[in-house]
Amino acid sequence: MIKDYKERYTVYKDIIDEKLNNIIEKNIPRGIYEPLKYILSGGGKRIRPVLLMFSCEAVGGNYSDTVDAAVSVEMLHNFTLIHDDIMDNADKRRGKETIHKKWDRDVAILSGDALLGLAYNTLLKTKSDNIRKITQAFTEGIIEVCEGQGFDKEFEIKKNVSLEEYLMMINKKTSQLLVSCVRMGALIGNAIENSIKCLVNYAENIGLAFQIQDDLLDITADETKFGKKIGGDLREGKKTYLLLKALDVVKEKKDKVILESIITNKGLQNDAEILKVKEIYEKYGIIESAKNEIEKYTSKANEFLNELKNEDKKNSLKWFSDMLLSRST
Amino acid sequence: MIKDYKERYTVYKDIIDEKLNNIIEKNIPRGIYEPLKYILSGGGKRIRPVLLMFSCEAVGGNYSDTVDAAVSVEMLHNFTLIHDDIMDNADKRRGKETIHKKWDRDVAILSGDALLGLAYNTLLKTKSDNIRKITQAFTEGIIEVCEGQGFDKEFEIKKNVSLEEYLMMINKKTSQLLVSCVRMGALIGNAIENSIKCLVNYAENIGLAFQIQDDLLDITADETKFGKKIGGDLREGKKTYLLLKALDVVKEKKDKVILESIITNKGLQNDAEILKVKEIYEKYGIIESAKNEIEKYTSKANEFLNELKNEDKKNSLKWFSDMLLSRST
Repeated sequence: MIKDYKERYTVYKDIIDEKLNNIIEKNIPRGIYEPLKYILSGGGKRIRPVLLMFSCEAVGGNYSDTVDAAVSVEMLHNFTLIHDDIMDNADKRRGKETIHKKWDRDVAILSGDALLGLAYNTLLKTKSDNIRKITQAFTEGIIEVCEGQGFDKEFEIKKNVSLEEYLMMINKKTSQLLVSCVRMGALIGNAIENSIKCLVNYAENIGLAFQIQDDLLDITADETKFGKKIGGDLREGKKTYLLLKALDVVKEKKDKVILESIITNKGLQNDAEILKVKEIYEKYGIIESAKNEIEKYTSKANEFLNELKNEDKKNSLKWFSDMLLSRST
Repeated sequence: MIKDYKERYTVYKDIIDEKLNNIIEKNIPRGIYEPLKYILSGGGKRIRPVLLMFSCEAVGGNYSDTVDAAVSVEMLHNFTLIHDDIMDNADKRRGKETIHKKWDRDVAILSGDALLGLAYNTLLKTKSDNIRKITQAFTEGIIEVCEGQGFDKEFEIKKNVSLEEYLMMINKKTSQLLVSCVRMGALIGNAIENSIKCLVNYAENIGLAFQIQDDLLDITADETKFGKKIGGDLREGKKTYLLLKALDVVKEKKDKVILESIITNKGLQNDAEILKVKEIYEKYGIIESAKNEIEKYTSKANEFLNELKNEDKKNSLKWFSDMLLSRST
């Protein structure tokens, strides 16, 4: 059974990859189209487009009606990556140089902008009587992601960020684009309002689980599988679920001082410091707590699927959330 | 008669200004919404939204159906300004500090991105059965403007730019957004295909005339009215219509050397040099030639209006192009 869903995921992912490899037809101006070819053929898990396709099927629609919309959300996602990488001064993305690094800042700003236009262009090819609502869902996703990134940047310099604020931020930055995906898929599949609501709640919860999983992997991943050193978030002084939870829970002075130094010093310097924080996390059950949260949001997500009717297609979304959250990278 | 059109322009401009002053309802994240309130209430001629409104009326539609779409093109225009100002390292815009200067680069990138999402959000409120085509016209405008900006950046470092290449670039960077405006207005007014074609040709030509007028004003404007020193383009070494035309026409060695130095030295240093170039422009009839081109494109534009049926509304567009091209700022 599971093998079937995995196969379906792979088939859909291949369709998306194939489309993305050929979607940029123009060559000039080179400062726009070269970087776009580079990033769109640069791989990725393609979870957003596949989620959109699965959602359409879950409400009884046909995945083949979703291809343009699915490709467009992946283009939108890549637009956010290009601009976020400028703001985060990131040198690498998916193991390759980022656009602003390989070309320059202006090329990254402009090719990102063009990509958003091209994403709409692709989306608007979708054959559906719901095109207005579909485009609205897509647009809502952009605004939410921008707001999420805005809060993320503000939290970088804000001293006291609460867990609640953190969840609000990752809801916007991660969950809401998944919400757009399920909404768009459901609208293409002509879903009834109630099914859309279930899918939206599902997406919101897997988004939160997904981001906390990301935070967790940064400290618990197997470095060889992970493809990079663990503790990257700690090195950068990022306020993750784990760090904020630890700051809440840890009372012992000497441990508290270490945690607070991550924020005041804007990151840790060496592996020994990272191991020390990992020990603190383990000592106070922070790792367990993160695992519980991931578990909680995932089963909450899956519960919302129960109201959908098609057993097989519903199970595909259950498989999807489990797959996302058992990932090791 | 003319007074009436001017009044109509002012009334429509006030509607747009009023809407733009209130369109940003949220306050946080501050790094997005503060700069957006700042730029959207910062004035401007609002020629794109008014052109959209006039175009709708010219095909028999009602301007009141266009307000959301009209506001959205002005938002789109401001999005391009925010990002172009980063790329051009511009400190001032409409006499006020640019966003990346008043805040910082990241705020300018992100608030620009959010503004594009908000522009679509506003556009999608438009009540029309043509919403897909309207949104496609809007999207096409974004892609063209980005391509135009891409060529503009490339021409900055390219040694030999032909007049033909220059016209191609300004068509994309300036005309095509005007084309989007007339197309959107016409679609909201349920225009027939032939009327849309006339309006598109009209917009393409006034765009070219508008940009060459911009180039001309930079050297011939009355500094007190212009609000800044003349010769800004020459100071920056920008390849304008006048400079490219002069490079084509001027054969005398000593004059040619001066013109070429503008490009090799990436701009002029002082007022004396600018006056010298102005003399060369006058000596070789470059100013006259630019005026003729503006005249040519404007009357070409106006000719395309002849096929439209409503005399009054057609004349409003004739007034509009004449107003644009007799402007002194």
